[in-house]
Amino acid sequence: MRVVTTDAGLGRIEDGAVALLNTAFPHVGAVLEQEGSLRCLASCAVRRRISIDEAALVAPLGRPRAVWGVGLNYVSKAARTGRGLPEQPILYLAASSGVSVPGAQVVIPQAVTEPDYEGEIAVVVGRRLYQATEAEVWPAVAGITAANDMTARDVMRTTGTPALAKSYPGFTPLGPSICTPDDLEDCHGIGVRTWVNGELVQDDTSAGMIFPVADLLSRLSWFAVLEPGDVVLTGTPAGTGQDRACFLADGDEVRIEVDDVLPLVTRIVRPADAAQRDHRLTEPVS
Amino acid sequence: MRVVTTDAGLGRIEDGAVALLNTAFPHVGAVLEQEGSLRCLASCAVRRRISIDEAALVAPLGRPRAVWGVGLNYVSKAARTGRGLPEQPILYLAASSGVSVPGAQVVIPQAVTEPDYEGEIAVVVGRRLYQATEAEVWPAVAGITAANDMTARDVMRTTGTPALAKSYPGFTPLGPSICTPDDLEDCHGIGVRTWVNGELVQDDTSAGMIFPVADLLSRLSWFAVLEPGDVVLTGTPAGTGQDRACFLADGDEVRIEVDDVLPLVTRIVRPADAAQRDHRLTEPVS
Repeated sequence: MRVVTTDAGLGRIEDGAVALLNTAFPHVGAVLEQEGSLRCLASCAVRRRISIDEAALVAPLGRPRAVWGVGLNYVSKAARTGRGLPEQPILYLAASSGVSVPGAQVVIPQAVTEPDYEGEIAVVVGRRLYQATEAEVWPAVAGITAANDMTARDVMRTTGTPALAKSYPGFTPLGPSICTPDDLEDCHGIGVRTWVNGELVQDDTSAGMIFPVADLLSRLSWFAVLEPGDVVLTGTPAGTGQDRACFLADGDEVRIEVDDVLPLVTRIVRPADAAQRDHRLTEPVS
Repeated sequence: MRVVTTDAGLGRIEDGAVALLNTAFPHVGAVLEQEGSLRCLASCAVRRRISIDEAALVAPLGRPRAVWGVGLNYVSKAARTGRGLPEQPILYLAASSGVSVPGAQVVIPQAVTEPDYEGEIAVVVGRRLYQATEAEVWPAVAGITAANDMTARDVMRTTGTPALAKSYPGFTPLGPSICTPDDLEDCHGIGVRTWVNGELVQDDTSAGMIFPVADLLSRLSWFAVLEPGDVVLTGTPAGTGQDRACFLADGDEVRIEVDDVLPLVTRIVRPADAAQRDHRLTEPVS
């Protein structure tokens, strides 16, 4: 099943259109907090059908309660940077206030000099995971979606703190659709591709992960409880702006495609003047 | 105003008792997400009055969407550790799935060898803060409460990652009551004291902070949006277990007192056997 949250409510993607569902849940996050999976949406009655182009897609999960991420989780990225493979995943939290709606403009703060994209597969937790084995992970996953784990490389260098470099408003575009695990074509080789202004800059699959999804979430679950609706960003492959010595600029369009998920498009705004404070803030997720 | 969340609903503390309020909000977090302050609770009709001892106090905020913290923020702590004063606050996020209810037992995972307490003043955000000046901070604060920012010192040493060392289930006891800024006796010198098994081990005030509350939240707000209901833990003074070379053990009682807030008591459970998995998990905040 492939699910979207629209401004007219939750919907299933069926035959290339959106079937709006007869449910009071405002978004997927609310379904997961109450139900622990998206199964209940499979049997929901359809109110009406609209085309995907007509559907105003909003943040699929609302504002999550946790957004975990992992540094250096693709063999391709390690090779590009010349770093050895880490023995343990380099885990961090980003502020979920940085999650932005699909299609949003992201306004780069004046202070950030090296804004970068990171195309990623995002895993959405369905059922609580704590001290989980690898085998327990996929059955507890509600679905996957696309993420752009945007990073201020300059802030990362000066602070050494992912929570600061990755939490600016809008720096975590997420969505738009969520694909349940049973509907993935190949859960061991999920493709992730990033285009910047139409140029393919990242192209890899989850088979290239250093810590694959089940291993990653299992390891994380020995440090913290993953709750329904929590999100784990699973790392980015080679081809970031850092790798290409080319950071994001005003007007850039970043498009991230994850297999079985609708494309996630972000538009970059970099105001020329310093008068952006409060006025041109990226639209928040409520 | 001093507010508590009980299993019978929200209440104001008045004349040493709890006035249960006629409101549908389940907890303070829900009030803040909708109202941006606690003011609406001041005029709520009282359903009935119960004694504080009778009141079953629960997590005041539910599960917050962000728990920020800061390393080394007291002059006393810097002096004790022999470290210089940091030029910038050392900021981190902890997983809010680690927040536990006041009075809870916290079960130390087998893998953690050096569990420690950190008595702290927690600031609860009322109104959204982004790129805020210091003068804008206090008017946007909903209130303060007490926190025990528990830390696995061994995990901190081996991973260098506060998000891992501080996110175990139950490792962030928070509450129980929230005092609004107008009701603080002295918002520039808020006392914070920690007792372990009745022995006073931390005793300082917010006047000893390296980055005082307004400065700290202002600086943080230049990296991330602080949303209503988000929590900022403002650092711990000298006297942690690390300072005393004495970590927490089975049966320990940690009591944290913050001025104008009810005491926050945590009981430590350290199972002798390895059979705790899933069974003796700290009670989660729902």
